[in-house]
Amino acid sequence: MISHKGQTWEFHNPPVLISAATVVGPDEGQGPLANDFDLIHQDNTLKQKSWEKAEKALMEDAADLAIKKSGMQKDNINFFVGGDLMNQIISSSFAARTLSIPYLGVFGACSTSMESLAISSLMVGTGAAKYVLSGTCSHNCTVEKQFRYPTEYGSQKPPTAQYTVTGAGASVVAAKGEGPVVTSATIGKVIDMGITDPFNMGAAMAPAAADTIVAHFRDMKRSPDYYDLIVTGDLASVGFKIVNELLKEQGMPIPSRLFNDCGLMIYDIEKQGVQAGGSGCGCSAVVTYGHLLKRIEKGEIRRLLVVATGALLSPLSYQQGESIPCIAHAVAIERQEGA
Amino acid sequence: MISHKGQTWEFHNPPVLISAATVVGPDEGQGPLANDFDLIHQDNTLKQKSWEKAEKALMEDAADLAIKKSGMQKDNINFFVGGDLMNQIISSSFAARTLSIPYLGVFGACSTSMESLAISSLMVGTGAAKYVLSGTCSHNCTVEKQFRYPTEYGSQKPPTAQYTVTGAGASVVAAKGEGPVVTSATIGKVIDMGITDPFNMGAAMAPAAADTIVAHFRDMKRSPDYYDLIVTGDLASVGFKIVNELLKEQGMPIPSRLFNDCGLMIYDIEKQGVQAGGSGCGCSAVVTYGHLLKRIEKGEIRRLLVVATGALLSPLSYQQGESIPCIAHAVAIERQEGA
Repeated sequence: MISHKGQTWEFHNPPVLISAATVVGPDEGQGPLANDFDLIHQDNTLKQKSWEKAEKALMEDAADLAIKKSGMQKDNINFFVGGDLMNQIISSSFAARTLSIPYLGVFGACSTSMESLAISSLMVGTGAAKYVLSGTCSHNCTVEKQFRYPTEYGSQKPPTAQYTVTGAGASVVAAKGEGPVVTSATIGKVIDMGITDPFNMGAAMAPAAADTIVAHFRDMKRSPDYYDLIVTGDLASVGFKIVNELLKEQGMPIPSRLFNDCGLMIYDIEKQGVQAGGSGCGCSAVVTYGHLLKRIEKGEIRRLLVVATGALLSPLSYQQGESIPCIAHAVAIERQEGA
Repeated sequence: MISHKGQTWEFHNPPVLISAATVVGPDEGQGPLANDFDLIHQDNTLKQKSWEKAEKALMEDAADLAIKKSGMQKDNINFFVGGDLMNQIISSSFAARTLSIPYLGVFGACSTSMESLAISSLMVGTGAAKYVLSGTCSHNCTVEKQFRYPTEYGSQKPPTAQYTVTGAGASVVAAKGEGPVVTSATIGKVIDMGITDPFNMGAAMAPAAADTIVAHFRDMKRSPDYYDLIVTGDLASVGFKIVNELLKEQGMPIPSRLFNDCGLMIYDIEKQGVQAGGSGCGCSAVVTYGHLLKRIEKGEIRRLLVVATGALLSPLSYQQGESIPCIAHAVAIERQEGA
């Protein structure tokens, strides 16, 4: 059913992504992937009384939509694995209250998207569940006030900063059915190269991405050209340049035609004023569950590796002079044989 | 290898707790379970520059000690599953940086102790890992300043409030070896009965505990007397009374000789001025990994059910008028047959 090789799980009865759904805010709806999202809100409050309630609503909507598309009833879903960037992951936990599905909360900062998919796949791939809902979310305004400055300040940012995606992505992972399959998952180590600037997350996260990518190829005895596309989660322009350099140094360069970053894909970086690019749990979630799964469905990609990256700092750890520990989890998603 | 029944996993090749370790602070060292802890710090700063760094050190020490007792080297441990109450679970993530073991961060507030053990057992029980380190921690002073008032205020508390345990518990879960085994795990739903008072967590969490207990017995077709002892995580005196009433109402009363609460066990409640009793991720972790596993080793208990309870609120959700969603995860730990 499952082989364990180093940091990697290989699924011999690969779990199927029988459905996925994405809900985003106005900025993401003006980006190049707009057509791939299920629901675009024009108002980032979603008519809720707070941004936090709006973020929870994003998660609930994506979850509802993913379940609806799967053809299942909510009662058929055995478990919900979710997380987000909020203190005490309230967006996911409050969404889990609404969903009333047995719930495992997870946290890996922006890597949570693939952490939750890896755990969901483990459950389905080993017979511990038939149907698992996997989802993550983030909101530009909740993250701004929690991690940086009061959102209303509209504080200026250096060009290395990233713009948190307002969006939620969810998928229903099943033991069988139609759709792309999860063939393996690599769980990352925490890597910290001593970067202390919270306005340069991409640089902090790049070494973690490189470490997990190298581990994945080592464990699976594979080279990058096994995949049609490898995407990192949210390194954006600064971090993506660094991960390319690190992979070259480690003797595992990824050809540029095979390599991209969700934080670079979601916005028109030149026009949208998003500094180095997108970030947040929602970034890799909506790019993967929206755009990339559709490319697999169309046959444009057969084999995809999503390497979601996360910066595990808190405002308090930064204030206490700690550097930024980072992590990346990779999930391989492939078109089903015969599809 | 594993059966999935409702919300419950039954492990047919039960994962073994080959070692466990607990590290606590001065208050816990003056309580009735003091002799069961591996390391008692007399100074709750652990000579660190901040309480947060002290909490991280608790987690690191418990992890190191658990690995040492297991007879393994750190490199043999495939994964670390951990979490805590801090924003962005920094205690566990920074400990994971020090450990340099592939890491899955989890969050279920004080239920994290059994969430992490359930996921670790899933991994080991399905062949996804040979050795997994599972651990959680909490610190009285970090929680006070994060969730309530600046610690230095020494603010007065109502008698329904609970006293957060300073402590960390960790275990090494293995596919085989000597020690108690994890035979099943029940993943809880989020339950919210509308309680909004963060100084009465026990009352908020009791319905979640009852829900998971009833689910466990329903899924496993078992009655409470299957177990020699059932403990809830940290309901303390107010919540424990309520869970008893709820279970009676639901036709599944647990005889008092079989039923206790880690929050009632860890302190001498009359003498230690801890209001209704203990709480925190560290509470059920150190009582289980310290005291209860030793009772299993001694043969005083053969079958134990630990129902760790968590309140999934944040200070912000409370300020925004939300009630307190709660969850409980149950793990059954039994003496190995023939032992």
